[in-house]
Amino acid sequence: MAMLILNESEVRAAVDKVDAVAAMEHAFTMLADGKALLPDVINLEIPQRNGEFHIKGAYLDGSDDVAFKAAISFYDNPAQGLPSSSGLFFLFDSHTGVPKALMLDNSLLTHVRTGAAGAVAAKYLARERIDQALVVGCGTQSRFQIKYLLTVRDVGRIKLYDQAPEAAETLREELAGTAGLDVSTTRSLADEVPGSDYVVTVTPSHKPLIMADWVRPGTQVTAVGTDSAEKQELDEALFAKADVIVVDRLSQCVRLGDLHHAVDGDVIAVDDVAGELGDVVTGRVPGRSGDAQITLADLTGVGVQDAAIASPVLARAVEMGLGRRIET
Amino acid sequence: MAMLILNESEVRAAVDKVDAVAAMEHAFTMLADGKALLPDVINLEIPQRNGEFHIKGAYLDGSDDVAFKAAISFYDNPAQGLPSSSGLFFLFDSHTGVPKALMLDNSLLTHVRTGAAGAVAAKYLARERIDQALVVGCGTQSRFQIKYLLTVRDVGRIKLYDQAPEAAETLREELAGTAGLDVSTTRSLADEVPGSDYVVTVTPSHKPLIMADWVRPGTQVTAVGTDSAEKQELDEALFAKADVIVVDRLSQCVRLGDLHHAVDGDVIAVDDVAGELGDVVTGRVPGRSGDAQITLADLTGVGVQDAAIASPVLARAVEMGLGRRIET
Repeated sequence: MAMLILNESEVRAAVDKVDAVAAMEHAFTMLADGKALLPDVINLEIPQRNGEFHIKGAYLDGSDDVAFKAAISFYDNPAQGLPSSSGLFFLFDSHTGVPKALMLDNSLLTHVRTGAAGAVAAKYLARERIDQALVVGCGTQSRFQIKYLLTVRDVGRIKLYDQAPEAAETLREELAGTAGLDVSTTRSLADEVPGSDYVVTVTPSHKPLIMADWVRPGTQVTAVGTDSAEKQELDEALFAKADVIVVDRLSQCVRLGDLHHAVDGDVIAVDDVAGELGDVVTGRVPGRSGDAQITLADLTGVGVQDAAIASPVLARAVEMGLGRRIET
Repeated sequence: MAMLILNESEVRAAVDKVDAVAAMEHAFTMLADGKALLPDVINLEIPQRNGEFHIKGAYLDGSDDVAFKAAISFYDNPAQGLPSSSGLFFLFDSHTGVPKALMLDNSLLTHVRTGAAGAVAAKYLARERIDQALVVGCGTQSRFQIKYLLTVRDVGRIKLYDQAPEAAETLREELAGTAGLDVSTTRSLADEVPGSDYVVTVTPSHKPLIMADWVRPGTQVTAVGTDSAEKQELDEALFAKADVIVVDRLSQCVRLGDLHHAVDGDVIAVDDVAGELGDVVTGRVPGRSGDAQITLADLTGVGVQDAAIASPVLARAVEMGLGRRIET
């Protein structure tokens, strides 16, 4: 038997042939339907090396693959000219346990699945026509949020904000060449949130960036950056103001998401959450039901997303003849 | 950067150049000295495919590598002509987190480290001269127990027992060609335990195989097969009769080892355990201190062993120019 080894550029070529948004709809549907196996994760912290390993796996019922992902961060790497974070996927045949593929994707698939999950939230929660989308935080992930948002919605204009204005300017220049895209930067969230019907936060902020008072009826707010109890991007009061609150995984968001601050602060109760993204995708919970609603999505990232993106990427890579085969 | 891919035969060639017993002495020393990081493990069971994945990792302070091991069992595989169990190692650079090597060892290193741990127990607990060694259970692991035992002790005679007599006979034939080795089979443990000064059990038994009454002064008994609460190889009463009890990891043996039955049955208290193997290797706890002592080792397998064997195997493989390099 043989396993396939794919490097980052091969993964990039294959993922461009995958409908990542559809893959995320599948992921969240399987999660909501109780058809995903998500085992405990490995967290290995090596303080003496200022590094850490996080390994998670998932199996989606009916899939031909079992996927494991390692996310690795070594914070002293930049001093040696190496990236601080990297990642890889390992896939096994779900019928036999035989190793199928190693994808040295350097976190690309994590960025893709996170961006595509944002697009799923937009597809079901944002207004049909987005006149202005505001992107808060202009790091790597913001590029994926924009890329996949544009596959589900027409966007009149994109406003870019970053605490470091040069980061916003760099992203503006990158996007300037995209046909039909009106992109500019802003230095004031207070000025731009009220005029935006789509706001996505992609920051590691530890204090609220989007205040409830700024958000006008009709706006969809998606919080992507918050993935630990210390982080916060949204004013808790926004949870009380929102008409529809959707989360990717409730048990996780009450611990690690922006939701956690709203629930801990008694601004809302857990029961005020309309449902998980998968409930909206399957139609069990309605998404947006009127142009004046304020809708809110709290996304923390779920292991099903990793499995759901890795599997079709491998299938496309095989079809495209990418990678090197290693006899096992 | 490049990572190295090694297949089973390359791992086999490299491990033959490694002092596996010394590697295990190092492993248990690091564990006893509190210099090992052992994170939680991933257990992913897929009942609908009758398969399971177990992933564990370890870092030994000062090592250049962080090692993760996947052990995979799919019980319907034999019907398709595939082995039911397999395994692989993944090593990262402990300084940078960069992937270093994938070893498709098919559980070989697990067999090596388990056999070499048995030899460590023999080195510190068995009499200097073993007139008769009794091997109970003649599966794959028994071969590794014998191989590494012979690196630490001269053995006058080896007796082989298996519930399936043909398994013992097959192993006898395999060993018959080994110069200077006197090997024969037996169908009665009651007959052979009393005349053995070394007994090692390597079975998946769910009831005691070695009765306390049979064990004479001077004998070392090592239980290797028991690694879950349901399994048992040794009569609980043997724990009361033993002069020195050593375990590989106390917190694990009280749950999963033969020790668990002795402690749960109030035959001995946890405090009656002399110490962990690492305490004996470092000399903090004496091993055998007289030819008439009955000594007992309960080995369940610890993640430090995996890291401690994988690291020198990779180093030898690199020196020997084995494997294929993949650009990452």
